[in-house]
Amino acid sequence: MMIIQMNDHCTSLDVARVCDQQERPGCPVRIVPRSGGSCVVVDGDSDAARQAVSDLPGVKSVSITKCSYPLASREIFGAAHPVELAPGVRIGGGEIVVMAGPCSVETGEILLETARGVKASGASVLRGGAFKPRSNPYSFQGLGSEGIALLMEARQATGLPVITEVMAPEDVEWLAPHVDILQVGTRNMQNFALLKALGRVDKPVLLKRGMMSTVDEWLQAAEYILVGGNERVVLCERGIRSFDKSTRNTLDLSIVPLVKSLTHLPVIVDPSHATGKRELVLPMSLAALAAGADGLIIEVHPRPEEALSDGPQSLDLEAFDELMQAAGRILAALQFQEGKRCGLKIAM
Amino acid sequence: MMIIQMNDHCTSLDVARVCDQQERPGCPVRIVPRSGGSCVVVDGDSDAARQAVSDLPGVKSVSITKCSYPLASREIFGAAHPVELAPGVRIGGGEIVVMAGPCSVETGEILLETARGVKASGASVLRGGAFKPRSNPYSFQGLGSEGIALLMEARQATGLPVITEVMAPEDVEWLAPHVDILQVGTRNMQNFALLKALGRVDKPVLLKRGMMSTVDEWLQAAEYILVGGNERVVLCERGIRSFDKSTRNTLDLSIVPLVKSLTHLPVIVDPSHATGKRELVLPMSLAALAAGADGLIIEVHPRPEEALSDGPQSLDLEAFDELMQAAGRILAALQFQEGKRCGLKIAM
Amino acid sequence: MMIIQMNDHCTSLDVARVCDQQERPGCPVRIVPRSGGSCVVVDGDSDAARQAVSDLPGVKSVSITKCSYPLASREIFGAAHPVELAPGVRIGGGEIVVMAGPCSVETGEILLETARGVKASGASVLRGGAFKPRSNPYSFQGLGSEGIALLMEARQATGLPVITEVMAPEDVEWLAPHVDILQVGTRNMQNFALLKALGRVDKPVLLKRGMMSTVDEWLQAAEYILVGGNERVVLCERGIRSFDKSTRNTLDLSIVPLVKSLTHLPVIVDPSHATGKRELVLPMSLAALAAGADGLIIEVHPRPEEALSDGPQSLDLEAFDELMQAAGRILAALQFQEGKRCGLKIAM
Amino acid sequence: MMIIQMNDHCTSLDVARVCDQQERPGCPVRIVPRSGGSCVVVDGDSDAARQAVSDLPGVKSVSITKCSYPLASREIFGAAHPVELAPGVRIGGGEIVVMAGPCSVETGEILLETARGVKASGASVLRGGAFKPRSNPYSFQGLGSEGIALLMEARQATGLPVITEVMAPEDVEWLAPHVDILQVGTRNMQNFALLKALGRVDKPVLLKRGMMSTVDEWLQAAEYILVGGNERVVLCERGIRSFDKSTRNTLDLSIVPLVKSLTHLPVIVDPSHATGKRELVLPMSLAALAAGADGLIIEVHPRPEEALSDGPQSLDLEAFDELMQAAGRILAALQFQEGKRCGLKIAM
Repeated sequence: MMIIQMNDHCTSLDVARVCDQQERPGCPVRIVPRSGGSCVVVDGDSDAARQAVSDLPGVKSVSITKCSYPLASREIFGAAHPVELAPGVRIGGGEIVVMAGPCSVETGEILLETARGVKASGASVLRGGAFKPRSNPYSFQGLGSEGIALLMEARQATGLPVITEVMAPEDVEWLAPHVDILQVGTRNMQNFALLKALGRVDKPVLLKRGMMSTVDEWLQAAEYILVGGNERVVLCERGIRSFDKSTRNTLDLSIVPLVKSLTHLPVIVDPSHATGKRELVLPMSLAALAAGADGLIIEVHPRPEEALSDGPQSLDLEAFDELMQAAGRILAALQFQEGKRCGLKIAM
Repeated sequence: MMIIQMNDHCTSLDVARVCDQQERPGCPVRIVPRSGGSCVVVDGDSDAARQAVSDLPGVKSVSITKCSYPLASREIFGAAHPVELAPGVRIGGGEIVVMAGPCSVETGEILLETARGVKASGASVLRGGAFKPRSNPYSFQGLGSEGIALLMEARQATGLPVITEVMAPEDVEWLAPHVDILQVGTRNMQNFALLKALGRVDKPVLLKRGMMSTVDEWLQAAEYILVGGNERVVLCERGIRSFDKSTRNTLDLSIVPLVKSLTHLPVIVDPSHATGKRELVLPMSLAALAAGADGLIIEVHPRPEEALSDGPQSLDLEAFDELMQAAGRILAALQFQEGKRCGLKIAM
Repeated sequence: MMIIQMNDHCTSLDVARVCDQQERPGCPVRIVPRSGGSCVVVDGDSDAARQAVSDLPGVKSVSITKCSYPLASREIFGAAHPVELAPGVRIGGGEIVVMAGPCSVETGEILLETARGVKASGASVLRGGAFKPRSNPYSFQGLGSEGIALLMEARQATGLPVITEVMAPEDVEWLAPHVDILQVGTRNMQNFALLKALGRVDKPVLLKRGMMSTVDEWLQAAEYILVGGNERVVLCERGIRSFDKSTRNTLDLSIVPLVKSLTHLPVIVDPSHATGKRELVLPMSLAALAAGADGLIIEVHPRPEEALSDGPQSLDLEAFDELMQAAGRILAALQFQEGKRCGLKIAM
Repeated sequence: MMIIQMNDHCTSLDVARVCDQQERPGCPVRIVPRSGGSCVVVDGDSDAARQAVSDLPGVKSVSITKCSYPLASREIFGAAHPVELAPGVRIGGGEIVVMAGPCSVETGEILLETARGVKASGASVLRGGAFKPRSNPYSFQGLGSEGIALLMEARQATGLPVITEVMAPEDVEWLAPHVDILQVGTRNMQNFALLKALGRVDKPVLLKRGMMSTVDEWLQAAEYILVGGNERVVLCERGIRSFDKSTRNTLDLSIVPLVKSLTHLPVIVDPSHATGKRELVLPMSLAALAAGADGLIIEVHPRPEEALSDGPQSLDLEAFDELMQAAGRILAALQFQEGKRCGLKIAM
């Protein structure tokens, strides 16, 4: 595979010329719009083709790779760089973000109380599900568009950007303008129609790892979004399925430093879904940060025992505040390793 | 949960009266159209509610259940009954169906050669992928609507009904009239938007088990389709993910008799994807039938070494013919057990 | 690795000469006594070494292999050959054996009643545990040597050879003379001290697959026994651990034909432990035979509801008889495939 | 189950009287010698039995439990208390221990170089394998008793206590006097004969979690040792088997805080075997401590590229020193949470 990076100021004619030269039967060419200059991805490579393209106007660099996710790879695109989630909120490349909020949006009051609480403790994104993927067709499926309206109100009231899950390709376009970050749930990690739709919008995407997906499949799923021209993908480890049921899922924390060595995309951890147990959320949040995660996403509810879903794994506001204080101390301790860990800076 | 079965000849007024009586806040009511008379599913139950509804006109029977998939359950809907896949092709309740064909539709010639071959050996459905779910965005994604056209031609030429995979909810409506059976792939078993769309069409659905899904989740996924009013769901075991990589997936054959004790829906087995190895397809096909499967779906290609995908697990036409002969002998041997195995009859 | 097979009539001097020639630092040499002539296994190989040894007296053949289990491999030792379990009872190479009996030996009466019953239905080996591996130290651990005495009585009364589990290396030597087959349980598949002890006795060994062991690890565990000079190893698939708990274990039946293509050792299946559910034992027994298993090991108890252990997965005598009749019909049906399946003959 | 704790100063007659009173058919009684006074474990319980025993002389307290590992449980034996590994080296209850050294003992020089290096960086126990459990019978199996002699020399030279693996019950008695801590490897976690032998010696035991074992099975395995009268058991999480092979095993870190809530035994983590990749050892060590682990066991080799086994996951001395410095900072940061985490004190 050949990745041709164009200059920032190249013309569309330059890009077209590259494509014309490279396109052959069985060797498709894709133009990927990117902030620092478009990319042309050629599915195939030869020394002759490489040589030929290098001299064309507008071409910045040409790379050959066997990596199955070139746009996501560090190999081609270098060290981790921050992703902008919303104005003033960046993640990765040393900047840490904690997202928090209820599993489902239930009422405006609860959502607002939660938003104010988590903001006070240092969270910088509000999470809340309006469309809920439920195993059972008879279970509560979320408030839908009414829930989106409540999220917009909470954002207005607190200034916190909001993240919510999108489950179907046809919802992507109408939903994107109303929220700040779109989330792909674990069951949809290989919903390729959904991934393609997300590649076409200008909003960051949080891509949860499939509960039975390998690291390689996960990065290729990210590539589906990137190749559509959406550069802002954040990965989220949320636990995999294993034989052991003593926790809800098995948090596969070792892949955090592994994935960070493979990709420039930020990686966060969801200890709430991973463990399914409130009392494990604090220690596993600290562990995730110590392992090098770029952030956390935490389920918080003012009164977890009244939550419509995921109560047993939700923290109350006090416990969340305690978590954030402990997280701050861990991040401060990690700061000393800066040189060794790709310039981790503490944003909190 | 309360399942109210209406008489076949009841009026829509009868149904409306039942709904009016049962609907309360927090206790939603769903009308499920069914061939033998509609069902009303009430999410909640009480002796009073049950008593009240029994006397209403048009009510045939009322059942209370804790089962999370009442419409799919044997508990409520009794023994396995055949599902009509196409005129003259029925599966389940003792009727066996073998589906065969290439992984992907590649050219009209190959497809037709395959269709004629598998029909001659006794297959009664032609399989072929036009929309291919691929882990990598740069891999061949299938011929799309062109592939559908080729399937329609092969059907016309051979009379074999065709099955193909559908990957996105927005494709369901336009695709349904052109094919006989719609397939849900393993990665989409919990794509709830897709399942809901399939609940609204009048075509049978083959629901593959998710590679990471429990039996309970699988039957609840079937329930998503059934509750939409589409009664024709066939389940397909195709191997799960485990620690062992000596076969492509781990064929979980024990769940065939288990699932048949839980549901009236037919269950078939895909030994091609389960094992990923051509030489294991014959023994595991026989094993599947011996375990009580209602059918098989087999990848066949006239020249597997030239196949664009899944060549190593595809049989050639000769090997498929050998498989069908062996299958016939096993089914004949099983016939003697008829009384013990819910009336398994040999349809071949 | 180099495998030097000696002639049957070679002298110990011939063997010594081969060893002297091949032994070098970092290149250990092992003499493996075998019925058809000893083997010398040399851990290392070179064309020169191979050439040199070929001319020595007593050398029948020399093979070079990268296989990690040369003595177990078909590659070196050819097609499956029957293993003698007891006088007149052979397994593999087309001969089928069914072993049956209670999980634990409980009383002489129950054991004898079971032995007579399973013999009448066609079982040719009596199983019964005297030393029970239990997860909990406070659980019933078996009758120990008293149980062995009861097994010997049952053998005397019925003529059935007996199989029982051995758990510790120090028990191997004293136990071997009293029973016909020694069983290694799933938790001990990689108890290398135990495997080494079993390599030194003249009794066949049933090696159950570890519940989390790969096929490769299993065959290497068999090699530990073979390299000690004990040629009579029978493999037993009994289910692996996976995420799905709808059956007690996940019966990995596809590895039966896979393993038979890799090794000459017989492979049987334990559907009782694999499924943990009585009603699944019959269909999975038939499936195992259809997949090519050389036999079955089945838990049978005259009154399963009174069994001290594994009652829910035990068949009563009537159900076992029904299983044996169905198995006979399946085996008869498979006979037609003889040419294709390495000469499977029906021994029942 | 009833746990009768005797006074420290009770007589053997007192204990005998308790046993006499409680022993009945089907209700076995075990005397467990313990430092703070023996325990009598009665397999069965009734109000009458409990009442009766309370009044006997020497009885300190009586507890009834349904826990399957009463001696290991916090429920009966309260908060974590430190375990003495060697004079001056204690683990648990807030005291942290790092064990380090080569996978296998290779030569005296390498071992001594490693021992001096890891001691200088703050390790307080030297690890090194003399008996190596290897999947393949032809692989290097360790230096055996010669390796033990080298460990003893390294201890003498550096003052570091040593830990080594024991694989067979018959090795326990002779090995125990020569080393400080005996290790049970992952493949032997349910080698019950070995566990029983370890229950009878006066040396601490490091019990690695089986790669296929649940938390419940692990604690019951510990109970096998405890019930023999050996109170000094330390648990070690070393990764489980899952579908994902991107790391050697899947480090199941969430069970660290979970297990610490269930048992008073210390829990350490082995990031070397868990990840199999040198570059993941540092981040996962920090994560383990942040999750609440009582210590670490790390593979270190002066020149990993020359190691006979596990080179790719071994740190060199410089990397280990860096790890220890980072670990110190994390532990200092965690100190602030003391009140919340059972009094974690930083021992380094």
